[in-house]
Amino acid sequence: MATFSCPVVSFAMKCSYGSSSNGNHGDYRVDISVNGSASTRPVKHHALVNEIALKSPTSLANIQFLENSNEKIRQRIPTKKLLVDPYRRGLIVERGVGYRQTVVVRSYEVGADKAASLESLLNLFQETALNHVWMSGLLGNGFGATHGMVRNYLIWVVSRMHVQVDRYPIWGEVIELDTWVGASGKNGMRRDWIIRSQATGITYARATSTWVMMNQQTRRLSKMPDEVRGEISPWFIEKQAIKEAVPEKIVKLDDKAKYVHSDLKPKRSDLDMNHHVNNVKYVNWMLDTIPDKYLESNQLSSIILEYRRECGSSDSVQSLCQPDEAEISVMNGRPLDMIYGYTHLLRTKGETRNEEMVRGRTRWKPKI
Amino acid sequence: MATFSCPVVSFAMKCSYGSSSNGNHGDYRVDISVNGSASTRPVKHHALVNEIALKSPTSLANIQFLENSNEKIRQRIPTKKLLVDPYRRGLIVERGVGYRQTVVVRSYEVGADKAASLESLLNLFQETALNHVWMSGLLGNGFGATHGMVRNYLIWVVSRMHVQVDRYPIWGEVIELDTWVGASGKNGMRRDWIIRSQATGITYARATSTWVMMNQQTRRLSKMPDEVRGEISPWFIEKQAIKEAVPEKIVKLDDKAKYVHSDLKPKRSDLDMNHHVNNVKYVNWMLDTIPDKYLESNQLSSIILEYRRECGSSDSVQSLCQPDEAEISVMNGRPLDMIYGYTHLLRTKGETRNEEMVRGRTRWKPKI
Repeated sequence: MATFSCPVVSFAMKCSYGSSSNGNHGDYRVDISVNGSASTRPVKHHALVNEIALKSPTSLANIQFLENSNEKIRQRIPTKKLLVDPYRRGLIVERGVGYRQTVVVRSYEVGADKAASLESLLNLFQETALNHVWMSGLLGNGFGATHGMVRNYLIWVVSRMHVQVDRYPIWGEVIELDTWVGASGKNGMRRDWIIRSQATGITYARATSTWVMMNQQTRRLSKMPDEVRGEISPWFIEKQAIKEAVPEKIVKLDDKAKYVHSDLKPKRSDLDMNHHVNNVKYVNWMLDTIPDKYLESNQLSSIILEYRRECGSSDSVQSLCQPDEAEISVMNGRPLDMIYGYTHLLRTKGETRNEEMVRGRTRWKPKI
Repeated sequence: MATFSCPVVSFAMKCSYGSSSNGNHGDYRVDISVNGSASTRPVKHHALVNEIALKSPTSLANIQFLENSNEKIRQRIPTKKLLVDPYRRGLIVERGVGYRQTVVVRSYEVGADKAASLESLLNLFQETALNHVWMSGLLGNGFGATHGMVRNYLIWVVSRMHVQVDRYPIWGEVIELDTWVGASGKNGMRRDWIIRSQATGITYARATSTWVMMNQQTRRLSKMPDEVRGEISPWFIEKQAIKEAVPEKIVKLDDKAKYVHSDLKPKRSDLDMNHHVNNVKYVNWMLDTIPDKYLESNQLSSIILEYRRECGSSDSVQSLCQPDEAEISVMNGRPLDMIYGYTHLLRTKGETRNEEMVRGRTRWKPKI
């Protein structure tokens, strides 16, 4: 580990809720009986599962096997590269290595202004990234780890995310999400996204992110094993969704921050497949600290996140937020205070010391 | 109103955040310039919008018109019946009146157990109901109101919802949602749903709901005008997703309830397109009151909701919850307390009195 060379200086992990996150969740139900509900199609796969169950109904090892079989039948994760997925409306583009998915903005993904929320966009980024790995035939588990990563007990952790939004898609609008990956230094991976209007081709949003590998047992960063590089590097593209000459440095806030929300706690529904608090939830903690009045007349145009530390399920989290100094402008003869940026910090609030989880920087523009 | 005959005794409104909810949101942005982002397709519709803008750029009426034009171009709500929607993977079934949509369970719709949450299922119910009206060519505004309803200032309000879940779909699973409508008494409408596995046809969940019309200005229930009956009754089917001989009566809880969460406040992100707290959020307030320990080993098998009153944006909400008396059972020689049901109440907490918002009843079964 001493010679580890990683392009990201800050170290980040997703929120962990226990020492194990290998995807074998003990509480996953085994539901092998065919229930009595009306069925409109022949029951293809359950016969097999029932047969296995009848042979040795009490063995714990068999139950584990059945869980996995049942999941496999229901998920049907491809074992080799797929070019088109009609259910996801996904296809492989960019000469065979990028992924494009067409999505309709759903009624529950928009807010009171009928526009998709930032949370919805981040959710779609996660979804398309995972579907990209899904279609590549490399998917070993739920969070985008390849078979080689699973063999080496490695998981992905996000260290940085930068999102720029020119325009928010609205309810019912058809959008196209493109995503692709590239190298980031020797041991990291970059993942980018672009959201376009399907009707006009106009770009609505762009995002870039950096990921590194962590040993899920030692919780330490890891080099990228040659086996894994061999799996993923054929998918790398040079193209960048956001050109960043010099990445912006984010100041670390302290107790003097203007707005502080304390005692934030992860809820049960904040946990995702990996028993982690999903990083999208972090963003909500940040944005909820900005005054309502400001958000009524402004919309987010960019956010940069630097993930630094995981938080525990029992951690109490503080969200700090500091507006940039207001610029005085004049509109219709009246002076206006205009704030275009906020600096953010999420930290755990311990008895003796606080620890940084995420630094953030948001930029805003007036709603027209 | 005195002679109003309605099949639902209890009166329900969605949470309102102001006197107007006609869908013309003043803060909706008018974004008519073609931004400088890379475009991969010819800009088809913006030329039209720009042309209109140039003709009379300062008139407020024109801005309103432009907002609507721009929305229409981006949403493309059908003005006549569509049989297939490739973007939504939706189609008209049931001899021309039912709607079926194929959906892949997304990574952010599942919880730590990889299974879709109840919230996700309720979101999909809302989405498919709106897409059903969308494809019917009758959609006048975002919340499923027909053109006739819009002309009569009427909106839909839900008064009752009953959901039964045999099995929760898991991440990546392809499911089919069927939805259809029927009469409910003289002035109400029933809407039902069924969720099936796409691979096996096995039914995973069923739901039924009752809707009535409300005058959005007086906030009072309304008869169904003949004009509206003429629009929607050709879509009515007799079939019921859940047969309820005698609907279960839900006890009204009081301060003696075992679990009470107080000071719940709607967040900005809880508001939907109609500036209402979405009824799905109510359900989370209910379920969060059940002890974590219980939820680790049990899963919801049914929920009945009776909506009774809207809540204001500044209301403080209490969530009360009472377990049924535990049944003593024995497993592996050890006695076990087993609770199969909870009664719920959401109420506003006023200075002088509390008012009922929603009564609920949940039933549970052990996770296997």
